[in-house]
Amino acid sequence: MKPKAINDLRERLHEISHLGATVALLHWDQEVNMPAKGANARASAIAYLSAVVHNKFIAIDDDGLLTNLKKSLEAGALDEREAVIVRETWRSYEREKKLPEAFVKELAEVSSKSQTVWAEARAKNDFNLWRPWLEKIVKLKQREAEYVGYQNSPYDALIDTYEPGMTTEETTRALNDLKDFLIPFWQKIMASKTKIDEQKILGKFPIKEQVAFNKLVAGKMGFDIEAGRLDKSVHPFSTNFHPTDVRMTTRYREDDVLYSISSTIHETGHALYEQNLPAEDFGTPLAEAVSMGIHESQSRLWENNIGKSLPFWQYFYPKLQAEFPKPFKRLKLPKFYQIINKVEPTFIRTEADEVTYNLHIILRFELEREIIEGSFEVKDLPRIWNAKVKEYLGLEVPNDQLGILQDVHWSGGDFGYFATYSLGNLYAAQFYQQMRKEIPKLDEQIARGDFSAVNAWLKNNIHRHGKTYHANELVRKITGEELNSRYFTEYLEKKYREIYKF
Amino acid sequence: MKPKAINDLRERLHEISHLGATVALLHWDQEVNMPAKGANARASAIAYLSAVVHNKFIAIDDDGLLTNLKKSLEAGALDEREAVIVRETWRSYEREKKLPEAFVKELAEVSSKSQTVWAEARAKNDFNLWRPWLEKIVKLKQREAEYVGYQNSPYDALIDTYEPGMTTEETTRALNDLKDFLIPFWQKIMASKTKIDEQKILGKFPIKEQVAFNKLVAGKMGFDIEAGRLDKSVHPFSTNFHPTDVRMTTRYREDDVLYSISSTIHETGHALYEQNLPAEDFGTPLAEAVSMGIHESQSRLWENNIGKSLPFWQYFYPKLQAEFPKPFKRLKLPKFYQIINKVEPTFIRTEADEVTYNLHIILRFELEREIIEGSFEVKDLPRIWNAKVKEYLGLEVPNDQLGILQDVHWSGGDFGYFATYSLGNLYAAQFYQQMRKEIPKLDEQIARGDFSAVNAWLKNNIHRHGKTYHANELVRKITGEELNSRYFTEYLEKKYREIYKF
Repeated sequence: MKPKAINDLRERLHEISHLGATVALLHWDQEVNMPAKGANARASAIAYLSAVVHNKFIAIDDDGLLTNLKKSLEAGALDEREAVIVRETWRSYEREKKLPEAFVKELAEVSSKSQTVWAEARAKNDFNLWRPWLEKIVKLKQREAEYVGYQNSPYDALIDTYEPGMTTEETTRALNDLKDFLIPFWQKIMASKTKIDEQKILGKFPIKEQVAFNKLVAGKMGFDIEAGRLDKSVHPFSTNFHPTDVRMTTRYREDDVLYSISSTIHETGHALYEQNLPAEDFGTPLAEAVSMGIHESQSRLWENNIGKSLPFWQYFYPKLQAEFPKPFKRLKLPKFYQIINKVEPTFIRTEADEVTYNLHIILRFELEREIIEGSFEVKDLPRIWNAKVKEYLGLEVPNDQLGILQDVHWSGGDFGYFATYSLGNLYAAQFYQQMRKEIPKLDEQIARGDFSAVNAWLKNNIHRHGKTYHANELVRKITGEELNSRYFTEYLEKKYREIYKF
Repeated sequence: MKPKAINDLRERLHEISHLGATVALLHWDQEVNMPAKGANARASAIAYLSAVVHNKFIAIDDDGLLTNLKKSLEAGALDEREAVIVRETWRSYEREKKLPEAFVKELAEVSSKSQTVWAEARAKNDFNLWRPWLEKIVKLKQREAEYVGYQNSPYDALIDTYEPGMTTEETTRALNDLKDFLIPFWQKIMASKTKIDEQKILGKFPIKEQVAFNKLVAGKMGFDIEAGRLDKSVHPFSTNFHPTDVRMTTRYREDDVLYSISSTIHETGHALYEQNLPAEDFGTPLAEAVSMGIHESQSRLWENNIGKSLPFWQYFYPKLQAEFPKPFKRLKLPKFYQIINKVEPTFIRTEADEVTYNLHIILRFELEREIIEGSFEVKDLPRIWNAKVKEYLGLEVPNDQLGILQDVHWSGGDFGYFATYSLGNLYAAQFYQQMRKEIPKLDEQIARGDFSAVNAWLKNNIHRHGKTYHANELVRKITGEELNSRYFTEYLEKKYREIYKF
């Protein structure tokens, strides 16, 4: 009886995941291909299909299949892999069944439309255009928290979707510690005598050649282009329909090739995770990422710890120079390395350096927590945003394009997501430290363009396990200790004291 | 009670159509974007979602909603538009409910996979690679005919999906008449002293510039690019998710710009129909095309009657010359007009001239009818194909790439579709003749690049009605008589006697 039950569950999950992947395709297409006038029809299609997926998932236990397997789990009658499937499916089921179908549909439709309006509002630098949609979304997310339930803060119910087990309180504590370190640290850097002129890497880079270079980098990193794509979108993202079809996007600026490259490296980090999940377990938690924090650890580890390191560019810089002799031929690698690691408070999160980046996150985390908790209203958001930018980054926000309108997340209903970027940085630093211990001559390998050991390490330690371990277990299993932010701060201290000589 | 019932039905159909459109997106993406390794996962997604759509559609009458409306219809209690919705929904429902869910799923999955194998088989010129898949599909389509039921031939049950009300017998008669005209007609043309050297329009045309020219033509014809796309695929096609998101594809050959242009004009003909369907009735038969024959009448009318006419090129040829001075600057319009209308039997249907084109269709129609009727087996197809090409077109097929492997239709399960191309030509000729009577100075307008009268005529007479009239009614309503192939044969006689001077 038992093997049949688990196989039945696998089959049902398999089907639901393919339908879920189709929702993801609707979203991907919306960002990459959809003609402008198709927005409303697309929002309806997303809403209807989201409701189908929701209902199919809830129906998984209509005949008691999941409940019976849960009993087997509690009786210790399942093997380790089966246990993971049942434990994690139960977890999602418990949450999902609390949400009414009409709510799921409304949230999906409003988020999709809101994203279209946000893109227009951003282009027009007009927060008020988007405001009513953001208000709707905040209300919906507050309702979601009420449906799901929480202990202390409604924000707990939201962060839990992205980072299972993480609470508002823990996150606040971790990010406050980080903030206490980061603000004086960037100020010290800015006070240093070392001045870096980033204009030297600007030039004129035809998009077609940028695309080719990005594909080269992604391919070298291990991305399988026959099992994925790299496209262009306003806001870079990665998504996956199956380990055999993982898609990422980047954005281009004609005068700055690094703009697209660093975003591609980031997305490739995500994409490698998805391509390395075990396809044979598709649909089950065995083939799903641990959490968004762990997901971001992959993108941030590649983007920063590796992608902004000297060895990485020892390999790629000669290629960059060959492809774009102007301006790189006359710029020496050490200088280039300095420039791509220049620290300076700026307005746009996705263009921020490693040091100030997390202050952008902390700001967003604080705002979204408070707005979900009802501490202030959407209309006050731009004002409070700007005040925090002043406080954390010392900058006066000149307009909402460079402020509140810059990120796609809230427009799509992703409240509770931002903190996972910073958690990702912390995980990444701790993982990278461990990886360096375990792989002898890692820098030499990277400098030769050989990423096989890095990939094998990430795959073996993280990717192949799917959701077998929760984030905190995984960190302990890999590094022998709890998540500890000192790996990140020590990494920053070492790297930036060297670059800025202080 | 009644207004509520019809609105309930509209709502259910609306939702189902959005889900159906999502299946169409999965297919479109498969042809345009999907990475190679994603094929199996895609086939599963298509299968699952097809089953969802099927089940939702069948469930439309679970509470007797449709049956009750059908009774209202029979009692004469519905207005004209309501009557169309109920009559046509009932028609589809009657058919769909006969198909078991497992069958729908299997057909969708096999067709999707088969299409991938077909593309590979075609590239490798290896019919045997594809053969087992085609065998599966033929068996599935035979099963479909048995489920649906038929009077004389199982092929009736298939052609009816594409051309409601049309029978195998009627189609055979119409196409036999056409065959009797066409074979001696192309032979007369070939015997004429006029020789046309089509090499003169060959050159080197960068794809990027071809794309731009194609978009120019499509836009001028009335295609709204903000409510659609033009992409590249192996086999050109058009699809629609909603009147606000209509997508077409074309294919490119670097040495022949007319290759992509004529295919774009054809697909734009389809796309205009879809963009002009009434969006406010989306989901209901009021916003669906009459039949594939009427659909093809739109594409063929634009592609041939207009797109291969002298006035059309009086407007576009100077633009083509300006964009591609080599080879067009030194080629005079009358010569160019001759070349694009050159008649000569060739192997590939989609490249065939207006005269021999229908012989390609007749051949396919005969083969698919017979194979569905079980008169021979899939393994014999290439042999019989080649024999018919010899008989109708006088050519020896050198390999299957130029023969049985050239068309995508059968690989995707589209048995019963081919005849609609020829019916489309017949409808097109009859419509065009009527349009010319009703629009004074049509040629002058076209020669000025003014397609507004053509578009208004097509929209008013055909597009805006959705499925209000069946094909035969529509033809009668517009032209005052039944479908009559003499409009097409007279059109060919007049045009080609002039070009070939016989």
